[in-house]
This record gives sequence, C-alpha cells and structure tokens, in this order.
Amino acid sequence: METEALGVDLGGTNVRAAVVDAGTGAVRAVAREALVDRSPEAVAEAVARVVAGAAGADGARRFGAVGVGVAGQVLGASGLVLNAPNLGWRDVPFAGLLEGRLGAAVRVVNDLSAAAWGESRFGAARGTRDALVVFVGTGVGSGLVLGGRLHEGARGVAGELGHVKVRPLRPGEALRRCGCGAVGCLEAYAGGANVAARVRAELAAGARSSIGDLTGGDLSRVGAAQVEQAAAAGDAYARRLWEEVGELLGSAVAAAVTLLNPQRVVLGGGVLLRSPTLLELVEWRVRGETSRSAAAALELARAELGDDAGVVGAALLGALARRD
Amino acid sequence: METEALGVDLGGTNVRAAVVDAGTGAVRAVAREALVDRSPEAVAEAVARVVAGAAGADGARRFGAVGVGVAGQVLGASGLVLNAPNLGWRDVPFAGLLEGRLGAAVRVVNDLSAAAWGESRFGAARGTRDALVVFVGTGVGSGLVLGGRLHEGARGVAGELGHVKVRPLRPGEALRRCGCGAVGCLEAYAGGANVAARVRAELAAGARSSIGDLTGGDLSRVGAAQVEQAAAAGDAYARRLWEEVGELLGSAVAAAVTLLNPQRVVLGGGVLLRSPTLLELVEWRVRGETSRSAAAALELARAELGDDAGVVGAALLGALARRD
Repeated sequence: METEALGVDLGGTNVRAAVVDAGTGAVRAVAREALVDRSPEAVAEAVARVVAGAAGADGARRFGAVGVGVAGQVLGASGLVLNAPNLGWRDVPFAGLLEGRLGAAVRVVNDLSAAAWGESRFGAARGTRDALVVFVGTGVGSGLVLGGRLHEGARGVAGELGHVKVRPLRPGEALRRCGCGAVGCLEAYAGGANVAARVRAELAAGARSSIGDLTGGDLSRVGAAQVEQAAAAGDAYARRLWEEVGELLGSAVAAAVTLLNPQRVVLGGGVLLRSPTLLELVEWRVRGETSRSAAAALELARAELGDDAGVVGAALLGALARRD
Repeated sequence: METEALGVDLGGTNVRAAVVDAGTGAVRAVAREALVDRSPEAVAEAVARVVAGAAGADGARRFGAVGVGVAGQVLGASGLVLNAPNLGWRDVPFAGLLEGRLGAAVRVVNDLSAAAWGESRFGAARGTRDALVVFVGTGVGSGLVLGGRLHEGARGVAGELGHVKVRPLRPGEALRRCGCGAVGCLEAYAGGANVAARVRAELAAGARSSIGDLTGGDLSRVGAAQVEQAAAAGDAYARRLWEEVGELLGSAVAAAVTLLNPQRVVLGGGVLLRSPTLLELVEWRVRGETSRSAAAALELARAELGDDAGVVGAALLGALARRD
C-alpha cells in the first residue's frame, strides 16, 4: 500500500475520491458523486461512498489514511473546518466525523493548499523547496510550499492572495465588493466570476466591445473565455480590462515573491491557463515588479496537474499523516 | 557551554560580538569595534577580535559555533554572502573565511532574519510558530518565522518588504527611486533616510510646516523624529506625510499577513518605535486591510529586544548549526 495513497476533493457541488500513485502522482481509480445534502453528516457519508467506490469497501482501512481537500479554512492538523462558505459550514470537526466512519487517519486541508502540494510533488513545482502556486479561476487563491513544507498559517488560511486589498486604478473609483464581504480584494477585480459580472454590467450599460458579438448578444454567456478571445483579436475594451487585471494580479504576485523569495512561481487555474493574453501580462508584471534580488533566479511555470492537483496533493498529505 | 551561545552583528560601520544566555536571551558579554577596512579578510579578522573580546581568546572553539548576522543577501546554510551593499561585497564565502580563523562552525544569516529569530525566541514573538517581524528604521525590512522555522527563501532574500513595489498616491506622481536602484519600492517612501531626504527637499522648496522650527532652521538635522514631533503636535504637513507613510507600510504588512496568516506581527525598528503617531496609523491600517480570516486571531506587538535582537538571534541560530 505504501506506493498508493487515497485522496478526496470536496467541492461545493461534488465530492471525488481517487487512488493516487504515490511515486508518480498518477490518478488510478476515481469515484465521484454530486452533493445533495450539505450537512456534515451527509457529506461524511458521501465521502465514505466515493472512497469505497475508488478504493473498495475496505479501502480507507487498507490505506490507513485519507487526505481530504476542502474549499475552506481548516485549522491545521486538527481537521476542524472553521469556515467553508460553499458548504455552509462553520466549526465542523470534519476529520473526527470521517475517522470514525472510514476507520483511518484523516488529514483535512484547504483545497488550494492541497493543489499546491500536488504541484510541488508531481507538477510544475517539483524539485523545489520554496514555491508559490497561484490559481485564478472563478476566484483567486494560492498555496505556499516553504522550506519543503506546506505552509498553512496560524489559522489555516495562509495563501489567501485573493483577499489581499488592491487599490482602485482610478482616483474616485468606488471599490469593488468581494464575495467575502470586504471591499477592494484582488478577487473582486480578478476572479473569473467577478470579471464576468463586471463585463456583463458594463456591456449592458453600453460599453463598446466585440465581446457581445462572441456570444450572439446573450450576455449571460459572457465569461473570461470571451474576454480573452476579444483581447487576443485586438478588442480595445477587452485589452484594457486584461491589462487592469494583469496589473493587479501581477503586482500582488510580485509582492508575494519579494516577501517570500520562492524558487518558482506556478500560475494555474482555469481562467489563467485558458487566457494566454492575460497570462503573458501577469508574467511580465511579475518580472517587472519583483525585487531584483528575488527576481534574479526566479522561475515562472504553468500548472501541470489541472483539476487533479487537489486530489493528488490531498492523497499525499494524507499519506504523510499516516506516517506521523 | 550549552546554556550560552555566541553571536556577531556585522553592520556597515561596526562589528559587535556577544555572549548570549541561550535560556533567556540575556546579553552577557559584549565587544565591539569600528570597521576601517571592509575587505572580507580584514572584516574576518575584526570578527575574530571581537569574538575574542567577548568570549576570550579561545572563545569560538569553546562554544563550537558562532552565528553572524550580516546586512545583506546570504545564500542559506552555505554562508555565501551574495551581496552586502554596506560592505561592498559580492559573492564572498564568509562562513568559510571565518571558520578557519575561529575554529568553530559558522552560520551566516541576514541581519533582519537574525533579529526576527531573536524576537521569536525571547522577544515580542515568543511562543508563536508563525510571526512576521517588521523593521522600519533607516530602511524597511522584515524577517519571517514560519512553522517555527526561520524562512530565508531560495536565495536568502526572503523578507524584503522594503522592496515591495507600492503605487504612487497621486496619479501622475513620479515614482520615487530606492537605494536598490528600482523605483516605487516601499523603502523609497517609508524608510527613515528617504523620508528625511524628502522632507528636507520639500521644506527647501517652500512647504509649510513646523518641522523646520524644530531644528532651528537647520534642515540637515531633519529626520523622522522631527516629523513625529510635528505630527503629534498637529502640524498638517507632518500629519499628511505620516498618513501616507502609514498607509503604504500598513497596506504592505496587511498584504503579507493575508498571504501568510501569522499568529503575530511584531513592529520594530527605530523609526517606528520612536514614532507613536505613525505606529498607530500603521496598526490601524493593518487591522483594516488584512483579510477577515487572517485578521480574526491576529496579534499586533511591538519589538522588545531593540538593537540586541540581531546578535541574540544570530547567536541562537549559530547554536542550532552546532547541533546539526
């Protein structure tokens, strides 16, 4: 069993379990189901079912440990989920709930931290001891591998790059409100969902852009993909928008690199990886704004594990817990 | 000997050695000399002399290890000083130079990292595993203790908070140039030397402020102390300046806290500790701009070890090297 590990990726709508080759990171067996009831008890039962689906009825016991990535704030090794907005959870002792059911040690970890760990072991950050892994998709987040270890922070919320406050680009511009309730967060300006909502509102208010044409005038279909397509084709509105988003993302990453001096920055997430125009603007800004000494040997890379990063990282972190 | 450790603080103008109580952090014996010749060989000899002065002729051998804090970029455990501008050094294998002379293991470390380690063991960050220690004096810098370990980064330059790029507060405002050669660094706006130079230039150009009166019209005597004194007395110019500096410092620290989720932030350095008006503005901004989840349990503290932090931290890090 030492050569395989068992991981779970718990999102707001789906839960997925996978058996992962601990020597290569390859995903070998997967089971998934949609979450209907989001109560901790019901979710724990769903986890037990997908674990059995991926690893067999006695799967967790055979592996001895399971790693679970959750989109939320997890208090270190205790496995207490302090806050998981997508699940509506606060202060749920989820590791404890699962351990009884699975008969195995359970390591619960923030999903982006798990994904960063996956990238650091078998993806774009392999071979480094210090890496910053940035994800820009619906939201904006990151995971930190420092000194060869996952850095989770005092309350399990390290890596919240999306909630770093950024300034408005124009004086007098009202600050955008973030899903977290605060104003001025990077995610409010650069997260895919917020970018899409902004573009829809600005097009509805008469902004000129070819973005509307790309969706046949159906604004509900506007997303980062259309902004990228229009920007790549030279649309001035889309280009300006990507320059603004690229500046904010790049400046925030550059500040993090200046502070942490990682060997490598990995850029990932659906929006960033599918938007080469934006990605180039971000990389240019990171190189330009990082301190000279931290930029000197900095490597920029693009995430390699895609949607598997989280479950791979969770499985590997779970296996580490087994050894503890 | 286990209860004592030997540390060296190597600045641009002075070198100081101290015997430190490893159980309390108390500084027991100190020797110091001014640096005349800054060549690596001459500095190594000066270090050997102050070590002998503090610990006796056979001091380093008896202790088995010495920790040396240097204002510069140190490549991890190798003891290679990549760059120390105050000494005019590039790529100096200083640990090797010293080890032969001292007959002991030598751990060379960045001075602010050493100071952060000192504060984390016996100062304002004691009892924490995750702390950000910020220093605002002539320049701006920080040291990071993460997961109970000193985080030095891939090239030994982690913590360069002073070289995070900050935006100009007014559109069209030219970016200030930093001592590092880049423009727009936090240190260019918030470091004590740069603040003093700016005030002198603005007063010479006719800015209205009581700061000039505080020095009897002698602009060469203007420094952060006069700005603080004027701001505390309600001077509008000084107050605006401190608000600008406080916003930039506080925003940069808040971003670092959001990213790292430390348990405690320690604020130190001569300018900050001697400027209560500025310190309050910084603390207010840190609390206001840190993400809610990272701010939830954040503790703000003021540095306690003063000028001893570096030599205490260096001594303790040296003792760790002995055990390796």
